[in-house]
Amino acid sequence: MVALGGGHGLHASLSALRKVAPDLTAVVTVADDGGSSGRLRRELGVLPPGDLRMALAALCGDDQWGKTWSEVVQHRFRSEGELHGHAVGNLLIVALWELLGDPVAGLDWVGRLLGAHGRVLPMASVPLDIQAEVELDGRITTVRGQVACALTPGRVRSISLLPPDPPACPQAVTAIEEADWVVFGPGSWFTSVLPHLKVPELAAALQSTAARRVVILNLAPQAGETDGFSPEKHLEVLREHAPWLSVDAVVADEGVVGDVRALEKAAWSLGGRLVLADVAAGDGSPKHDGPRLATVLDEIFREKR
Amino acid sequence: MVALGGGHGLHASLSALRKVAPDLTAVVTVADDGGSSGRLRRELGVLPPGDLRMALAALCGDDQWGKTWSEVVQHRFRSEGELHGHAVGNLLIVALWELLGDPVAGLDWVGRLLGAHGRVLPMASVPLDIQAEVELDGRITTVRGQVACALTPGRVRSISLLPPDPPACPQAVTAIEEADWVVFGPGSWFTSVLPHLKVPELAAALQSTAARRVVILNLAPQAGETDGFSPEKHLEVLREHAPWLSVDAVVADEGVVGDVRALEKAAWSLGGRLVLADVAAGDGSPKHDGPRLATVLDEIFREKR
Repeated sequence: MVALGGGHGLHASLSALRKVAPDLTAVVTVADDGGSSGRLRRELGVLPPGDLRMALAALCGDDQWGKTWSEVVQHRFRSEGELHGHAVGNLLIVALWELLGDPVAGLDWVGRLLGAHGRVLPMASVPLDIQAEVELDGRITTVRGQVACALTPGRVRSISLLPPDPPACPQAVTAIEEADWVVFGPGSWFTSVLPHLKVPELAAALQSTAARRVVILNLAPQAGETDGFSPEKHLEVLREHAPWLSVDAVVADEGVVGDVRALEKAAWSLGGRLVLADVAAGDGSPKHDGPRLATVLDEIFREKR
Repeated sequence: MVALGGGHGLHASLSALRKVAPDLTAVVTVADDGGSSGRLRRELGVLPPGDLRMALAALCGDDQWGKTWSEVVQHRFRSEGELHGHAVGNLLIVALWELLGDPVAGLDWVGRLLGAHGRVLPMASVPLDIQAEVELDGRITTVRGQVACALTPGRVRSISLLPPDPPACPQAVTAIEEADWVVFGPGSWFTSVLPHLKVPELAAALQSTAARRVVILNLAPQAGETDGFSPEKHLEVLREHAPWLSVDAVVADEGVVGDVRALEKAAWSLGGRLVLADVAAGDGSPKHDGPRLATVLDEIFREKR
């Protein structure tokens, strides 16, 4: 089982998948250029560790050991000084990278520390930048950097990567090739979900793998990136970025879908069926409920076995 | 078994004691105001963690797990930026302190991470400053701060603490009261070995405990702090700072003692015998050899049982 994504969206899918996927690998974007990750990337020339840290924390062991170390890696310093805003886990991951000289080995050590239910891998072996084509006041401009893309007042049309052909993490390629299922989303559509499709070796693995694919749609459009996007528009953008990708199932929350027929058609056009279910947290926030999402995914996985 | 000290000297005694002391507690100075520790203390208002981190690393487990995490906590960032010089373990310890709100609980968690052969405790519950009376050009001046005391061009006469009556770490008091043996030194004499004697509750525990005491002398005077000090001068200063302290054994390296009779007399005046042995690293550096020091200490502990 492979989950693709980044940030809080991947945290949500992993929080569900950890309960139903015995052999779980997260493949995580490495294009963040903001906050603690952006500073570490600029200061030390490393992969941005933040999304990787968050994925590891989502997979932490259920016992006091796993939970405590998960809180430690998620802890952020607050001060008037130089450490302000740094997440402890980011510093720990970077230290292991510097010591071991191998991103995957470093992440595996943090995974062992947390007693993680699964493995966390970077999608590429080098830091990336996201570049977006943005429509603003009727004109197309290019915006560079994950933070700038996420915050643009314009409408994102498409994204590409810099460098355009980054080396994929070899273990991530193998995980996709050997997976039974690959899960896309939820998450920031342009900056966390689509970037994987633009890494040539990952795209090739996604085409050749026998794995079935599930797309988990977001519960709401995201200000900036996907302002005003309907659920079916998300799938349309997915198809534009990876016309070769077929999908087996699309999971959407029944409470947020406006036009069920249009979404069903969009799912069919990707080769899949629409699974409408109650997967929202139920507190009014646009967040998935871990156990509910786990139940729905488990049913999908079982049907297709 | 309790070892008192700080810095590289305590690292040396713990590296020896871990092999021969089944129930080991290190009680560590918290007066550092330089480097990574000094910056953390000023930025976040915490105890300086560096000496505590070094003691924990000295006690790390013998397996790959313990050794790897020990290397991680000892790792220092090198850059042109804000993280330069910070030791990873310092950041980890401080994060646990912020999360758990209890210095001892935080250190115990790092101890468990490392599979530590023993426990590491701060000597006081609040950050301290060392103040030294220094003789320079025939005049007595007062120097404040561990770094300033260690680097003074003058001759240190005595030290005191600010605040003068800091609260001791309660678990450190108990450890001394229940110990069979207390080990002083080696280490920076004025800034790592003597400060413990100036914490009132630790001094009281050292007077009332039934534990026997060993002093491990340094292999060389330290530029600044103890320039030109003979081994017997070290004992004289110890007695001046704690006239109430009796000692059972004084360990000195046979290769560096000039006047054996004078040192023997100085040991007697503290109530103890002189143990001359070959405990130097043998590479010309003023460092103790862990296994040799362990053998000598083990003999002393056995004789007195």
